[in-house]
Amino acid sequence: MLEGLMQHDVPMSLQHAFERMHRMHGGSGEVVSLRTADGEVDRVGYREIGDRSLRLASGLTALGIEPGDRVATLMWNNHEHMEAYLAIPCMGAVLHTLNLRLFTEQLVYIVNHAQDRVILIEDTLIPMVADIVDQLPTVEHWIVVGDGDASALGDHVIRYERLLAEQPGGYRFPIIDDDRQAAALCYTSGTTGNPKGVLYSHRSALLHSMAVLTADCFGVGKSDRILPVVPMFHANAWGLIYAAALSGASLVMPGAFLKAPSLAHLIVTERVTVAGAVPTLWMDLLRYADEHKPDLSSLRIVPCGGAAVPRSLMEAFHERHGVQIVQAWGMTETSPLGAVAIPPEHLEGEEHWRYRTSQGQVAPLVEVRIIGEDGTEQEWNGEATGEIQIRGQWIASDYYQDDTSAEKFQDGWLRTGDVAAISPDGYIFITDRSKDVIKSGGEWISSVELENELMGHPNVREAAVIAKPDERFTERPLACVVLDGETTAEELIAFLDGKVARWWIPDEVAFIAEVPKTSVGKFDKKRLRQQLADGELTDRHTVGRQATPTAS
Amino acid sequence: MLEGLMQHDVPMSLQHAFERMHRMHGGSGEVVSLRTADGEVDRVGYREIGDRSLRLASGLTALGIEPGDRVATLMWNNHEHMEAYLAIPCMGAVLHTLNLRLFTEQLVYIVNHAQDRVILIEDTLIPMVADIVDQLPTVEHWIVVGDGDASALGDHVIRYERLLAEQPGGYRFPIIDDDRQAAALCYTSGTTGNPKGVLYSHRSALLHSMAVLTADCFGVGKSDRILPVVPMFHANAWGLIYAAALSGASLVMPGAFLKAPSLAHLIVTERVTVAGAVPTLWMDLLRYADEHKPDLSSLRIVPCGGAAVPRSLMEAFHERHGVQIVQAWGMTETSPLGAVAIPPEHLEGEEHWRYRTSQGQVAPLVEVRIIGEDGTEQEWNGEATGEIQIRGQWIASDYYQDDTSAEKFQDGWLRTGDVAAISPDGYIFITDRSKDVIKSGGEWISSVELENELMGHPNVREAAVIAKPDERFTERPLACVVLDGETTAEELIAFLDGKVARWWIPDEVAFIAEVPKTSVGKFDKKRLRQQLADGELTDRHTVGRQATPTAS
Repeated sequence: MLEGLMQHDVPMSLQHAFERMHRMHGGSGEVVSLRTADGEVDRVGYREIGDRSLRLASGLTALGIEPGDRVATLMWNNHEHMEAYLAIPCMGAVLHTLNLRLFTEQLVYIVNHAQDRVILIEDTLIPMVADIVDQLPTVEHWIVVGDGDASALGDHVIRYERLLAEQPGGYRFPIIDDDRQAAALCYTSGTTGNPKGVLYSHRSALLHSMAVLTADCFGVGKSDRILPVVPMFHANAWGLIYAAALSGASLVMPGAFLKAPSLAHLIVTERVTVAGAVPTLWMDLLRYADEHKPDLSSLRIVPCGGAAVPRSLMEAFHERHGVQIVQAWGMTETSPLGAVAIPPEHLEGEEHWRYRTSQGQVAPLVEVRIIGEDGTEQEWNGEATGEIQIRGQWIASDYYQDDTSAEKFQDGWLRTGDVAAISPDGYIFITDRSKDVIKSGGEWISSVELENELMGHPNVREAAVIAKPDERFTERPLACVVLDGETTAEELIAFLDGKVARWWIPDEVAFIAEVPKTSVGKFDKKRLRQQLADGELTDRHTVGRQATPTAS
Repeated sequence: MLEGLMQHDVPMSLQHAFERMHRMHGGSGEVVSLRTADGEVDRVGYREIGDRSLRLASGLTALGIEPGDRVATLMWNNHEHMEAYLAIPCMGAVLHTLNLRLFTEQLVYIVNHAQDRVILIEDTLIPMVADIVDQLPTVEHWIVVGDGDASALGDHVIRYERLLAEQPGGYRFPIIDDDRQAAALCYTSGTTGNPKGVLYSHRSALLHSMAVLTADCFGVGKSDRILPVVPMFHANAWGLIYAAALSGASLVMPGAFLKAPSLAHLIVTERVTVAGAVPTLWMDLLRYADEHKPDLSSLRIVPCGGAAVPRSLMEAFHERHGVQIVQAWGMTETSPLGAVAIPPEHLEGEEHWRYRTSQGQVAPLVEVRIIGEDGTEQEWNGEATGEIQIRGQWIASDYYQDDTSAEKFQDGWLRTGDVAAISPDGYIFITDRSKDVIKSGGEWISSVELENELMGHPNVREAAVIAKPDERFTERPLACVVLDGETTAEELIAFLDGKVARWWIPDEVAFIAEVPKTSVGKFDKKRLRQQLADGELTDRHTVGRQATPTAS
């Protein structure tokens, strides 16, 4: 509009993160990869990571991969996976991370839907795909990391290290259109219908990394040492990989070794400052830490998400191990950083914990709103609830070649399926997944809040609350509890008294061996409801109603 | 390119920062404005700042201001200026900050060049423009902050508070094209030719704010209380204002009261965590703090720039007051954040200080290179020097309607005029301004390094080193020193021994009453060289050459 306006042809692509890592932080940052359960690691500096990524890009180019082609990975977290994270987008191709916990039918669907031309796979994971190799007609090459038997993959096998070694060097990345070229593709692990692909642009990935670096998100800087326990095949490992490249922070990669002793060992020996994982893993680590007392004091911040983080878990880590767990909220469709629960300063006690157990304030460059059942936007008054809708620089506005998109997006906003209230100061308090909400006596009961309270009981390992059909009140909550010690149903119900509205308190408790999980470790309440319908929840205890189920 | 790619119509405009401030941080953040030298302040919360900004935008609209029109401010740092910072860009107009230290001829040139339609002015500053009002034909309205006499402005005077009070409310900002609409305009205070305008897009201003929030820049978060001593008319107050809005950090505004006692009082009483100013002001504050011992412990980080920050100043603040001064580098054309000198962790002593006295690592989303005298890019080896060139999301690629742009920009890179070496880990070490470089015996001598060493002497308040014509060696350095105690020229020369190459050591010292400054407080070496040529530097002392002037 005005001559001389600051307008730029410099792309906001992941190549910028790559260049900073390779050149500026090449001598200071590193990737440490755990290779055995008993603590053997290898270390590769960022300069070498960069050099190897260029060789990988060169090798893929030699295999005929062109801008826009999809190249998949089926790998744990390690430096080779980071090389793929860098090489594939920076050469203009699309990094497609495959979730190794999927059922093979879903894997077949996803690979074919994405039309992956190459798959990078770790040798230990080959058995996973042995039976489906013939069902993947678009896959022209398998690039195998490791020396293990790869005969199940057929003739089109290339060893990763050999591919890199064969490259002549001198490869240069092409220029990227940051807003029009995709960097990565990740399929959601939704429990209904086919998986849906989310396609991330270069710009969205780079801006998302900027947000991870801001003080009120994770504040990642070059002095950090980040342990992404969250898998790199799941929602971009919460953006920690590209944030590390952009900032120069080092990465400590756990590989396939996600048990508490391995993680504790890595934190202690590598002086990890940032570690991200779902609550279940932190519960395991807490039990281990309580028993073995490892020195976890290097941890500066522990982002935790993927499921509601029980207050009891945060309190226990804080009080017994000096570790600050911070709840974050997001999903594959949100890159995933949506909100982070950094509380206001100077609050103490219950006020502090109320904010800590929220989903937090929405990240900069992203906006949220809540839409009530009547379709109107609800006020931020901490009371009114509605479905969270979100939009912004790294929020999906569509699915990749999927005609069911319409129901998930509304006027450019993503419908998250989470139901929440928002406080006047913008903190999100999720009360439920819209599909998990319990409708009782004409009002909603928050299963999430009940679960959080139940998991605060010292003898409760996990608790999932689902709706149980009820003649009089439509639905009533059923508490499905995994015990870690001896407790009766009556004791649990009494424990809830005073913590939630009396009419919310379940009439019935089912003791179960474990809560079924989705492929990314979230509570799978759909399966739990199915088990209830199929009469599989047998260890049930009726306690008796605490109050008439109407809103207080 | 690929269907379903994450592409967004959500603009990255300053309205996003405004909305976060107004809604999310409306009840927590505030602007504290100092109104008298003896400490009287007023406080306005961010909700009210937002409401008032909307009223200002409404009032300007009523005066006929349309998107793209320039609206100027001639104001100190206070909450009204922040309201202008928000209202003017968010309504689609262009905020033009006028430097109140300019000569009136320059002010006339700038206002006419920008074609400002409205000027917001503080009543106390009216005498500055009394004589030039008739020379500003584009200015249709003067909006006066304060109740003071405004008769010098003629008939077109509106009182700020009255304008706000008269608005009906309900004003809404229009939709902004973040990449095509200008948010702000600031003229450089260059010492040659006419001032040149830098036009900032909305996107560049918002992304610049994101960078200010990242951990390895200033790490600004909602708990911070920021004291921008750097004026809001100078290089966007280093981006601190918009960063505060985006993050929710509070602002503590010093108004016209920039003397050490007022600043110390504000830091202590308002528990300031971040304070930004040029080195000269910190030198004053240091002397005050040494004497009066105010409690400055709330300060988390003190960004300092605009001129090289002497190591002695940083050491003194660190050792005697526990305050961390961090050098930052940039200019009007770079929004201004270019680089920040956060040192690598785990370094001590000389190694630590070597990094602290660098200009730092370039900010994310920005790139630098150094171009040698032969026009080729120089290696980052810590030795090779060249002119710093910079480009990126908030770096100017042109001047506003100025046909002298060509010499300042090269292939999309801004030529900064600073000469530097860059270490392998990307730290910039400025050796000189290209126009201040001293060419002696066929080699360059760094005036900046000599100044820094001289200012490390306890009895030196300020030192500026300029080139003195020399028959045999072309040029030799002349040290122009402002004393703060008793010291001889011989003692100063001896003090430099062992700190710089012997052939760099000046042959001559001139004692001066003060170093002439530019309108933004930088050493004005052009005027100093003129004083030398005019024979005005009379208190000169020849010491004798320490070594033959050839490169070591």
